[in-house]
Amino acid sequence: MGKLLEKINGPQDLKALSEPELEALAKEIRELLLHTVSQTGGHLAPNLGVVELTLALHAIFDSPRDQIVWDVGHQAYIHKMVTGRWDRFETLRQYKGLSGFPKPEESEHDIFGTGHSSTSISAAVGLAKARDLKGEKHKVIAVIGDGSMTGGMAFEALNHLGQLQTDLIIVLNDNEMSISKNVGALSRYLTRLKLSPRLRKIKAEVEEMLHRIPRVGKVTVQYLRKFEDALNYLVIPGMLFEDLGITYVGPIDGHNIADLKESFAHVKALNKPVLVHVLTVKGKGYPLAEVNPQKFHGTGPFQVATGRKIESSKAVTYTEVVGKTLVNLAKQDERIIAVTAAMADGTGLLDFAKQLPERFIDVGIAEEHAVTMAAGMAKKGFRPVVCIYSTFLQRAYDQILHDVCLQNLPVLFMLDRAGLVGQDGPTHHGVFDLSYLRHIPNLTLMAPKDEAELKDMIFTALHHDGPVAIRYPKRDGMGIRYNTPYQQLAIGRGEIARFGEKVALIAIGSMVNTALEAAKRLESDGISCTVMNARFAKPLDEALLYKLAITHQHLITIEENVAAGGFGTAVLEYLNRQNLPNLSVKILGIPDQFVPHGSNDQLLRDCGLDAESIVKVVRGLDIPLTCMSVRI
Amino acid sequence: MGKLLEKINGPQDLKALSEPELEALAKEIRELLLHTVSQTGGHLAPNLGVVELTLALHAIFDSPRDQIVWDVGHQAYIHKMVTGRWDRFETLRQYKGLSGFPKPEESEHDIFGTGHSSTSISAAVGLAKARDLKGEKHKVIAVIGDGSMTGGMAFEALNHLGQLQTDLIIVLNDNEMSISKNVGALSRYLTRLKLSPRLRKIKAEVEEMLHRIPRVGKVTVQYLRKFEDALNYLVIPGMLFEDLGITYVGPIDGHNIADLKESFAHVKALNKPVLVHVLTVKGKGYPLAEVNPQKFHGTGPFQVATGRKIESSKAVTYTEVVGKTLVNLAKQDERIIAVTAAMADGTGLLDFAKQLPERFIDVGIAEEHAVTMAAGMAKKGFRPVVCIYSTFLQRAYDQILHDVCLQNLPVLFMLDRAGLVGQDGPTHHGVFDLSYLRHIPNLTLMAPKDEAELKDMIFTALHHDGPVAIRYPKRDGMGIRYNTPYQQLAIGRGEIARFGEKVALIAIGSMVNTALEAAKRLESDGISCTVMNARFAKPLDEALLYKLAITHQHLITIEENVAAGGFGTAVLEYLNRQNLPNLSVKILGIPDQFVPHGSNDQLLRDCGLDAESIVKVVRGLDIPLTCMSVRI
Repeated sequence: MGKLLEKINGPQDLKALSEPELEALAKEIRELLLHTVSQTGGHLAPNLGVVELTLALHAIFDSPRDQIVWDVGHQAYIHKMVTGRWDRFETLRQYKGLSGFPKPEESEHDIFGTGHSSTSISAAVGLAKARDLKGEKHKVIAVIGDGSMTGGMAFEALNHLGQLQTDLIIVLNDNEMSISKNVGALSRYLTRLKLSPRLRKIKAEVEEMLHRIPRVGKVTVQYLRKFEDALNYLVIPGMLFEDLGITYVGPIDGHNIADLKESFAHVKALNKPVLVHVLTVKGKGYPLAEVNPQKFHGTGPFQVATGRKIESSKAVTYTEVVGKTLVNLAKQDERIIAVTAAMADGTGLLDFAKQLPERFIDVGIAEEHAVTMAAGMAKKGFRPVVCIYSTFLQRAYDQILHDVCLQNLPVLFMLDRAGLVGQDGPTHHGVFDLSYLRHIPNLTLMAPKDEAELKDMIFTALHHDGPVAIRYPKRDGMGIRYNTPYQQLAIGRGEIARFGEKVALIAIGSMVNTALEAAKRLESDGISCTVMNARFAKPLDEALLYKLAITHQHLITIEENVAAGGFGTAVLEYLNRQNLPNLSVKILGIPDQFVPHGSNDQLLRDCGLDAESIVKVVRGLDIPLTCMSVRI
Repeated sequence: MGKLLEKINGPQDLKALSEPELEALAKEIRELLLHTVSQTGGHLAPNLGVVELTLALHAIFDSPRDQIVWDVGHQAYIHKMVTGRWDRFETLRQYKGLSGFPKPEESEHDIFGTGHSSTSISAAVGLAKARDLKGEKHKVIAVIGDGSMTGGMAFEALNHLGQLQTDLIIVLNDNEMSISKNVGALSRYLTRLKLSPRLRKIKAEVEEMLHRIPRVGKVTVQYLRKFEDALNYLVIPGMLFEDLGITYVGPIDGHNIADLKESFAHVKALNKPVLVHVLTVKGKGYPLAEVNPQKFHGTGPFQVATGRKIESSKAVTYTEVVGKTLVNLAKQDERIIAVTAAMADGTGLLDFAKQLPERFIDVGIAEEHAVTMAAGMAKKGFRPVVCIYSTFLQRAYDQILHDVCLQNLPVLFMLDRAGLVGQDGPTHHGVFDLSYLRHIPNLTLMAPKDEAELKDMIFTALHHDGPVAIRYPKRDGMGIRYNTPYQQLAIGRGEIARFGEKVALIAIGSMVNTALEAAKRLESDGISCTVMNARFAKPLDEALLYKLAITHQHLITIEENVAAGGFGTAVLEYLNRQNLPNLSVKILGIPDQFVPHGSNDQLLRDCGLDAESIVKVVRGLDIPLTCMSVRI
């Protein structure tokens, strides 16, 4: 901890600092950031980019009276440090430590919880409207990146705000990249805006000229009047926001504290919707991140000197398997298109983008558009593969249902980060997908037990004439060879991964290996478990389930998904329809509450989804007694 | 049928018609429209507004080679008539008849199924991108209303299209109202655009002036050069689209076939993204609808001469109960805010808007923003009531989960049109909500059996400290008195609606009355059924369910929702955890397939959710045999 930061107990302490002191503080903060994130992992580059921005915001505004909403929230580390949390900063993203996102339970300065993109302006409009109705007089500020700005709901909020005309400040943190290099017309537009000061100057000069030009003859005067008239309407680029009724200010150097403070003080005095366009450099102050901000967007632990990752495992991740498999299959099948929503790296598509650029589509942060656009391509015979994190695909639930599945179109959804995502916590856990997808007609739903099966599932899905979703975890694979020949799996067929009796563990996806481990441990207790690798959450392998039900005393389903309405429930629904006497089914899954952040191992234990917990459940079963029940 | 329409077997037949003939055809079409919709019900005003637009489109473009995507789709009636379906038009919205929306199974001219708003540009981008990859050379046209344009995904698509720069035509059908009077900054902006021809003229004149003005002195010439420079950058309003890389053409009189044809021919020759701004009058040609387009947006059968609805029932609808209750409660509680997404009328909020305008918020077609904005207001102590149709709330699944429930905010969701919606069909049936909401932690989920209970549920929800969703059907209520004193219901407590033995019918919402009717019929067979009104899908009344389970031989759950993952599943999950011997639970709900359009009675029968079907299920139970089972 630096000398200055130690004295910052809250934003009020920033107001007393001179600009050189704020700059010195910025330096200390960057050191603490680098030191901590290199050990804990987390979002480094986005936070390095907003150090000055955050200090200037808190120096000018009065949080928590003034309410700051951080869009997406992964850039709020500095905000946490200067709002009384620097002394706990080393617990960042650790179990029971500081969250990597704004969290109202953590501080009154975290006014609104965020994690998913493009929500800040909507939340801020709600806060501002509430303020107005109460007759209060504070400021509401939404800090949003240029990437998040492409999300449709940000536009919905702008449209509403432009009509409301209430006092609200949007700080557009423009670093020309959200997570991958930013895409879309809005991004190009913002680039043009950077030229606008020059144009403004020209416009001012032209206006001045009008008053100097010799006025010869009536006709000329008439023209000039028309010209003056026109000039009042004519606008320079930058008016996309003005067209929507939002005053545009900028662009401003986001690393110049004096400029930032001046601009914020200026807009603080206005009582209308304003957008302040701030230019920042992602990774600022850590040369390795400035050169490669994508690598340091979200990172695991690394060596500060070299930037090299401190890796515990050399195993390939599921994400990498997806990337490699798609490149490989797309080379053989021209119908395959890879679609991502600003997550080319996160979903393993960088190589696809490089090797097959014409069939790689990054739509920016725009999950809804991604899905329906893919539906359009599927209509024309293509096989779009939409790669989106499980938690972000929640944004496109309606599009999956209404645009893809209702028309039974062969779109393949690759749900990365399905299951618990460890340190990213409750905003990012992908633990709902089996439940939000399973009830949609026409959709086939799979989850692989390992990387080889993942590869075969992709192959299978691309040969299936209808929509398919495959979910897989943010984790290393099992370390097995997977560049084996492609195998087309039978749709709706599982497999027995281990033969036993009495108890059948019916696991899907990431839980198959856990179930096998539990079965192994139980063997020493003399309990022989069958383990079924379900593969499909829909359609179910009903024949195999029936067989297991009539040959075992207890069935236990296991999934890394909420227990309500997911895979286990599907099994229960099916078996219940069979009218089996003395049926014993136990559903293991995530309980009905939001899971906090922490290591995956810890969280899986807490949720009862580790091998030891399963062992305990099986040991607790009333096995001998039920033995006497009559079986079909 | 008129003389001209009879000869239109496909769009090619339009190309031979002169403009006077097209105008005569427009007249015939309006007559057929009025005649049919006044009998079948349907979307009248939107279709009256696009008669000329549709004729001009099909006269200039070559459908189905050129692909037209109709946003929202309820304005595609004329498109259906001129693409070989006029002779079946009288079957519109009838069971097994023409759908009220574009439907690929119905015609090759219905290139993409629509029903929900703001999807057309995304689908069109997908079609265009696919065309480009295939090296084909046809046109793709998205026809989208100004209301749909406020939906975020339309903006996501514009942003992507502006970057792609591919050949795509957007026809913006601007009638200044989507369903309610349109709102938002975009709408005001479009109004300003209508002034732009005057501004364009001024700009042209100024440019001309530059070449005429006497050039006196070096300084002036210098200024003029700068001015010319500036003029190239300076733009008139209308550049919101141009800023995004999309060429703007318009505005054009949407009822002048000659102008429309000329404009479409012009943009057909361009090979880039173009937006054609067409001004139409909703309800055009039927004076009663022109004056009151909202009333004739979606309508039931009515008398053409008077516009009066042909009503079969005088009972109050659930929608009306919601409207009246909210006005009443909001007058007593200043924290209550009504929020709608362009559905003030449809969700019964017109009176609220009139009486409490400062606490009524219509965000336009923007469900995502509506939900997160409500979350912002709830943060500041308000009690926002978000009134959105069940099917449209699918758009905001992520916002409900991530912005409202994760923060456990007291937002009340009123899900109108939950269950089957009859003639509107599969795009609009609200049959997924119990399944897509039930697995979200912190959310309380209710459905009333009648209008009095609906009123009490609203009262109860507004006294509950957390998110609540109430679902209710698009139907008349039971015709009972409901302006009784408010009663606060116990959260998670159902009631016994009828005492019986042997069989318990556990119904929720709209199915309670159906269950009671079935029970009555079964009585004559000597089968005595208990009927439980569950009230809550979450939390369940576990105590009562347990009691029923141990005192009855068969439990049958009944819900107007998909059977997978819904209310019945919740009951099954709970009872399964109780390890009851010989448990017999049957889940009745919508099967795992999309339900077509038709009368609700017909569809409920098809789904086995009418009283007679329930009677049959109960009669089929093995009641005497199971009698012998031992009970706790």
